[in-house]
Amino acid sequence: MLQSKLFTKTIKEAPKDEMSFNAQALIRAGFIDKLAAGIYSFLPLGLRVLDKISRVIREEMDAIGGEEILMPVLIPKENWAKTGRWETLDVLFKLKGEDEKEYALGATHEEVITPLCRKFLFSYRDLPIMPYQIQIKFRNELRAKAGIMRGREFLMKDMYSFHADQADLDRFYEVAKQAYFKIFERLGLGGITYLTYASGSSFSKYSHEFQTICAAGEDTIFICDNCRMAVNKEIIKDQEQCPICGNKKFREEKAVEVGNIFKLANKYSQPFGLEYVNDKGEKKEVAMGCYGIGPSRVMGTVVEICHDERGIVWPKEIAPFKVHLLLLSNKSSWENNKKEADKLYQKMREQGIEVLYDEREEKGAGEKFSEADLIGCPIRIVVSDKTLAEGSAEVKKRNSADSKLVKIDNLVKELTQS
Amino acid sequence: MLQSKLFTKTIKEAPKDEMSFNAQALIRAGFIDKLAAGIYSFLPLGLRVLDKISRVIREEMDAIGGEEILMPVLIPKENWAKTGRWETLDVLFKLKGEDEKEYALGATHEEVITPLCRKFLFSYRDLPIMPYQIQIKFRNELRAKAGIMRGREFLMKDMYSFHADQADLDRFYEVAKQAYFKIFERLGLGGITYLTYASGSSFSKYSHEFQTICAAGEDTIFICDNCRMAVNKEIIKDQEQCPICGNKKFREEKAVEVGNIFKLANKYSQPFGLEYVNDKGEKKEVAMGCYGIGPSRVMGTVVEICHDERGIVWPKEIAPFKVHLLLLSNKSSWENNKKEADKLYQKMREQGIEVLYDEREEKGAGEKFSEADLIGCPIRIVVSDKTLAEGSAEVKKRNSADSKLVKIDNLVKELTQS
Repeated sequence: MLQSKLFTKTIKEAPKDEMSFNAQALIRAGFIDKLAAGIYSFLPLGLRVLDKISRVIREEMDAIGGEEILMPVLIPKENWAKTGRWETLDVLFKLKGEDEKEYALGATHEEVITPLCRKFLFSYRDLPIMPYQIQIKFRNELRAKAGIMRGREFLMKDMYSFHADQADLDRFYEVAKQAYFKIFERLGLGGITYLTYASGSSFSKYSHEFQTICAAGEDTIFICDNCRMAVNKEIIKDQEQCPICGNKKFREEKAVEVGNIFKLANKYSQPFGLEYVNDKGEKKEVAMGCYGIGPSRVMGTVVEICHDERGIVWPKEIAPFKVHLLLLSNKSSWENNKKEADKLYQKMREQGIEVLYDEREEKGAGEKFSEADLIGCPIRIVVSDKTLAEGSAEVKKRNSADSKLVKIDNLVKELTQS
Repeated sequence: MLQSKLFTKTIKEAPKDEMSFNAQALIRAGFIDKLAAGIYSFLPLGLRVLDKISRVIREEMDAIGGEEILMPVLIPKENWAKTGRWETLDVLFKLKGEDEKEYALGATHEEVITPLCRKFLFSYRDLPIMPYQIQIKFRNELRAKAGIMRGREFLMKDMYSFHADQADLDRFYEVAKQAYFKIFERLGLGGITYLTYASGSSFSKYSHEFQTICAAGEDTIFICDNCRMAVNKEIIKDQEQCPICGNKKFREEKAVEVGNIFKLANKYSQPFGLEYVNDKGEKKEVAMGCYGIGPSRVMGTVVEICHDERGIVWPKEIAPFKVHLLLLSNKSSWENNKKEADKLYQKMREQGIEVLYDEREEKGAGEKFSEADLIGCPIRIVVSDKTLAEGSAEVKKRNSADSKLVKIDNLVKELTQS
């Protein structure tokens, strides 16, 4: 993409009303815009990242048998009333329509997916199924100060699984867990994201959170490096040792909950009467699980973790562009240098390399360099008088201080191999 | 995709509370599910179609310089108050948050995009720009009886264009018009979709609608076959002749508004103070246009138009799958026939042909045929004892009564060329 065509611009001053680092950096770099507390627009660069995060999640959900659907935002009161959550779920945004019907905006979708599946699930042969969606969700938070890590409006992937019995739910729950680890690895949060025991409810002893170590996190977890697991502070009894292996080296960390998975068992199938007929002809309740990840929260978390004093350092798979190509030049050689950089840009595009090309004539080298650092594409390539004198371009990774000259003729080949 | 893995099923009886044909057919075929009047879930087959419609629109918007963004659903009252629409736009769903702030759910996004662009537009060099989004929109309709043709909640592509002056707006408006014709052509509505003069407002004499001839449409238009244009009945003065060419053969038709475009001029830039500095250093108001298409309404319209008594007949580019492969067999030859059909399925997938494969053993031929007709993929391919005796499969287009046998070895090649 030509940077001159991008309608957003980087912003020099961090917005004063924004307290979280992730939102400050993303607003300054032109990825998002704040409409109100906890409510953001995703601008062209930001939407590219959000879409890439969603794509990674979608691929891994499809790989374990997920079927993508899209459920509504407006959910009638009667659905919530069935489970009692119209009264008990305090984050619901409620409203009344012209038809005098009451609705709440979807904060979670068990009250939609369960009666929906009742229309298609009859026999044990129809199980298991794992529908999921990537949809905007709403939480009526009193305060929203964590940027896109905790929005009033945010994107969410929520999968629901339906099983003939607890054993099949247990089996799939482990499959989903592994898929989640794969997702966080691909999103650049591998190694610092821990499966974390958290409070359960009447229907299961624990739930599991995926917590990413992050100073800006709202949660506190205790990590056992022996088990490679963590326990949320909320449920911990003994802060001195791991409840699983007894390890005494239990370290406390601030963390962000980037995902969570629950065994719901019959909590929702029961009120909605979701039953099936087993192979003996008996009616049985369906066992359910649910599995959430928020792409917008992941995006905020990545920014909190992957940055330096100059800007964002995007992980490869979710960067808005793989390459940021900068054209620098003296006035006299502008036309020649631009011709060379244009050719390179064209060649990269032909090879399917995603590239943001800063071909703006009115911007100086200093501004182009600092914008490239702020935006944070993984590879910066500079074409200038100096590099062209060597028949080369300068290649520098965003996460490294070193740069090298690469012959222009070899550059695209090297990029497609990296 | 294996049909046995699809969690939805076709439904024999049309739902009793659903009056529109499009929703009846889409519910019966397992594309959508009704949660409440005007509020639907998109199931796996339906989401595939919706995504394909969005993709066509996205490609054509990108081709004319559009930049995709995503704006919020929750829009604060103060934004609507600036333009007076908090009071005048009667379709707004309004609600109050825990923070005592009032919001309306986005029914349109001028009140968000205009102040947003104010942060990035300063000079004539920054113009024109054409941001757009594909986002869920909400309209607080008293009644909602037209299926997904008029929802309380629906998907919408809305582009907004920003220009230095009326002349540049006029220029781009024509470009957008042509892009819209291309979109409707690709969506299978070419030839029956007319640019239609409709009521304007204080800021422009007319707006333009794109109206598709459709018996289930809520609008009435008068078409001049000479001008290849139409006029909405709402604004017509003389039903006897075309106001442009005077043609007396003015025919009346029921139609669905599948898109609309407006020259907004300064209607929104003025209240939000959206100005730029021209090349003479003078402050000027930005001229705006807006351009809408609803992918979910388009989907409903296509179903109203492209069907026969047996089911939906999807246009090629938006069909959920290009091919519906049916495996039929006597019990004795099941294993052999399945092996042949599996091979064919594998080969098609390797060639990137999208195929729904009905490999269910428990379903008879009659049921498979009628489900294939109901779902409506463009090409049906049958592998059976009879066809395999000839080393062939039977190929039939959904929109034709004729079928032919094609040698299995030649089939994939023929499909990739069609």
